[in-house]
Amino acid sequence: MTMGAFDQLMAFQRETEALAQISGRLGWDQETMMPRGAAEQRGEEMAAIEGVLHARRTDPRLAEWLDTAEAEDTVAAAQLRHIRRSYARATRIPAALAQRLARVTSTAQGIWAEARASEKVADFLPTLAEVIELKREEAAALAQGGDLYDALMDDYEPGATAASIGAMFDRMRPRLVRLRAALLEQAPPPKLDHHFGQEAQMRFSRDLAAVFGYDFLRGRLDLAVHPFSSGAGTDVRITTRVVETDPFNCFYSTIHEVGHACYEQGIDPDYLLTPLGGGVSMGVHESQSRIYENQIGRSPAFTGWMFRQMLDRFGDFGVASPEEFARIVNRVQPGFIRTEADEVHYNLHVMMRFDLERALIKGDLAVADLEAAWNDRFEADFGVAVDRPAHGLLQDVHWSCGLFGYFPTYTLGNVYAGCLHQALRADLPDLDDQLSRGDTSAATGWLREKVQRHGGLHEPRAVITLACGMEPSEAPLLDYLDAKFGALYGL
Amino acid sequence: MTMGAFDQLMAFQRETEALAQISGRLGWDQETMMPRGAAEQRGEEMAAIEGVLHARRTDPRLAEWLDTAEAEDTVAAAQLRHIRRSYARATRIPAALAQRLARVTSTAQGIWAEARASEKVADFLPTLAEVIELKREEAAALAQGGDLYDALMDDYEPGATAASIGAMFDRMRPRLVRLRAALLEQAPPPKLDHHFGQEAQMRFSRDLAAVFGYDFLRGRLDLAVHPFSSGAGTDVRITTRVVETDPFNCFYSTIHEVGHACYEQGIDPDYLLTPLGGGVSMGVHESQSRIYENQIGRSPAFTGWMFRQMLDRFGDFGVASPEEFARIVNRVQPGFIRTEADEVHYNLHVMMRFDLERALIKGDLAVADLEAAWNDRFEADFGVAVDRPAHGLLQDVHWSCGLFGYFPTYTLGNVYAGCLHQALRADLPDLDDQLSRGDTSAATGWLREKVQRHGGLHEPRAVITLACGMEPSEAPLLDYLDAKFGALYGL
Repeated sequence: MTMGAFDQLMAFQRETEALAQISGRLGWDQETMMPRGAAEQRGEEMAAIEGVLHARRTDPRLAEWLDTAEAEDTVAAAQLRHIRRSYARATRIPAALAQRLARVTSTAQGIWAEARASEKVADFLPTLAEVIELKREEAAALAQGGDLYDALMDDYEPGATAASIGAMFDRMRPRLVRLRAALLEQAPPPKLDHHFGQEAQMRFSRDLAAVFGYDFLRGRLDLAVHPFSSGAGTDVRITTRVVETDPFNCFYSTIHEVGHACYEQGIDPDYLLTPLGGGVSMGVHESQSRIYENQIGRSPAFTGWMFRQMLDRFGDFGVASPEEFARIVNRVQPGFIRTEADEVHYNLHVMMRFDLERALIKGDLAVADLEAAWNDRFEADFGVAVDRPAHGLLQDVHWSCGLFGYFPTYTLGNVYAGCLHQALRADLPDLDDQLSRGDTSAATGWLREKVQRHGGLHEPRAVITLACGMEPSEAPLLDYLDAKFGALYGL
Repeated sequence: MTMGAFDQLMAFQRETEALAQISGRLGWDQETMMPRGAAEQRGEEMAAIEGVLHARRTDPRLAEWLDTAEAEDTVAAAQLRHIRRSYARATRIPAALAQRLARVTSTAQGIWAEARASEKVADFLPTLAEVIELKREEAAALAQGGDLYDALMDDYEPGATAASIGAMFDRMRPRLVRLRAALLEQAPPPKLDHHFGQEAQMRFSRDLAAVFGYDFLRGRLDLAVHPFSSGAGTDVRITTRVVETDPFNCFYSTIHEVGHACYEQGIDPDYLLTPLGGGVSMGVHESQSRIYENQIGRSPAFTGWMFRQMLDRFGDFGVASPEEFARIVNRVQPGFIRTEADEVHYNLHVMMRFDLERALIKGDLAVADLEAAWNDRFEADFGVAVDRPAHGLLQDVHWSCGLFGYFPTYTLGNVYAGCLHQALRADLPDLDDQLSRGDTSAATGWLREKVQRHGGLHEPRAVITLACGMEPSEAPLLDYLDAKFGALYGL
């Protein structure tokens, strides 16, 4: 018996997915285990496996199989949709352009890191201009006459458009700015003044991961410079970091990455090593990490349990009550750095990057004017002047990697998390009772059932619509922020 | 300008070598870091990368390039020799046979492990028979009319023949049996009765690795069930294990793996990611691990330094003098297990396996008769009856993996180490002074210069001949064993 086109296609794709997992594992190794002296050799190894992957993703047999393969059910149809999209994107980009992009962005990261360390914007701008020029070429090849920025964003959030996201951001900004102003008028919670040892932080991190349903049989938690989650299926690894004066950095980085990892671990095992076997988009991925971290992990019910845990583990660390602890965990303060921002400020950071990078890709903003544009916008939105480039446009790695169109998915994830949280609360009326006992199983079980298990089966917006019984909207997130922070700060 | 055939071939080969490094790193990950639940997925990932490697190693373009490529110097000629040999071996084995072998040996390892745990030889024999049948087929495809066992051994020790190794083993056996008998008549050294904590053992292991010249900038040391070394070039990782009642298990496993790793780390950096960029054969590899471990690491001069180190690190552990310590480190006792054998017994284990597996491959010994043959031979050579299968023919993993022709390289490594040690002593008359201060740099520097830096440049026997100024022979090893153990045991 000979295999039909669909089965041949899926067998070929399965090997590609397995090779992509290997590439991801090398990335993990590089950030956690690799000896320092191996960096150059690793570069060649990564280039070799990426070459293999690119050849497979543009293999002409894919076109033949896709032409004749027939989907027998909705799962098969979704598999074909993913492979078709990936093949179209891979083949539209000329090989020479892909190679130039790979080479330039690989160098650009090093140049960016040095410029950030020496606070010299001018050292980075020529390279950034080159990256943007190549990304515009790539976008033109992908867009085939459509919007350039949409074409780039489609890689991270299929189906999203800059126009609709821009409109949503415009609706969100006034309410966030209003809430922010009201909160900053209140007395801030006290600062922690205690030393939290690395080993005890890592022990509690492991326990928190387990509390949120992370399966250590199919994963592991290590230290790294930047927290991240990597891998799919039965091998999903996470990292966290430790700052001995600020334990929440470690604990909430862990819970955030556990959200990403539980999404991957929660996908239907039937989808393992297929295009459906991974999170469907960056926005939906971020919805899981953010709802684990914020709506669940920073809820006063859950922080009540955490407070008692920390007293047991670290002794008296100078916080008087669970109420004060909840305010410290949910501290609102203006700051330069996106990754350290609280729930209220975070989206303002994202919106600013979204507007700037859209203008860069459109050609409305020249790289030479970027620093001024960044600093003006920051002062307007945050009421503080940027004091140095590492606190300004040199803070994020994304642009040096060519990640244009990625930033908006962070806020989209928050918006999706807001929708999911509203639906979750409606379905689980006694959720706070459970969280106050450190029991997240009903909440994480609901998310696994409604979102995670489907993997790539539905389009991103459809995942949220099906889970919540309503089209995604920013309203639940904004209502949640008003209610939560209003109560915490006694507005 | 278009590239000539040689340059095209080398560019293609370089990517293959990089992909082979990735495959090796996955193997390391599997033994050290991989979550338990990921085993099945990892099997698919390994199969996918092995498929890529096999396709590249049998790529028809290799034949074209090899036909026209011209070597401009001896280095280029050696590169071509390696690629030619690898291509010939890879293309001679029918794809269907290679796949069956991969599938059967992968299952066989699990069956072997279970049979060993339950001490049931009969559970393993049918699978072993299948493996042997396939290996005989493979050998016939490779040998093209020549000796089957030679064809298998050629994968591990190019150029070696069973006839010459068998003749050498026959010359060695009587002297080893005689030495063994004389030593067993002497009073054994006392047994250690002390607890050596895991952390302190690992700390000393790391220091020992550094003492022997292992470069942690291009490697790392972790715990694993079985000690091993993996990787080439700038990323050569080693593992060790800890038994808290027997610190020498950890320390000498470490030194042994450091020997393997220093060989890889010591190769001329110009050979990185080329066929010359790895150890040239299993026998030469084992010569490095064994000379680090035994001729240097277990020399009374070096153990004198180790004794003082251990007193500093572990306090009084019940050993009275450096002389007694040297006897304990060099304890000679009969035992069932090859990997735990002392220098005198070790080669007797290897010779026995060599004779048995030669007979299996030739067809002179049926799998049904293997246990009796093993047990008879063991009692004849070691004077003790095998008490259970895990102490007998179920002890080694090799046959379940299809590694026939591998065992003799262990003793070949010892013989090579004997030759190198004789030459090393002649060139470094004050070596014992250095070793007694814990300074191995002259000895390891000599080995790097004479052996390690050449990588795959010369044929295996030529490496030893060039380093020692004489054809390899078993005599230096036997003389060394007589002299060292005679002195230690007062014969």
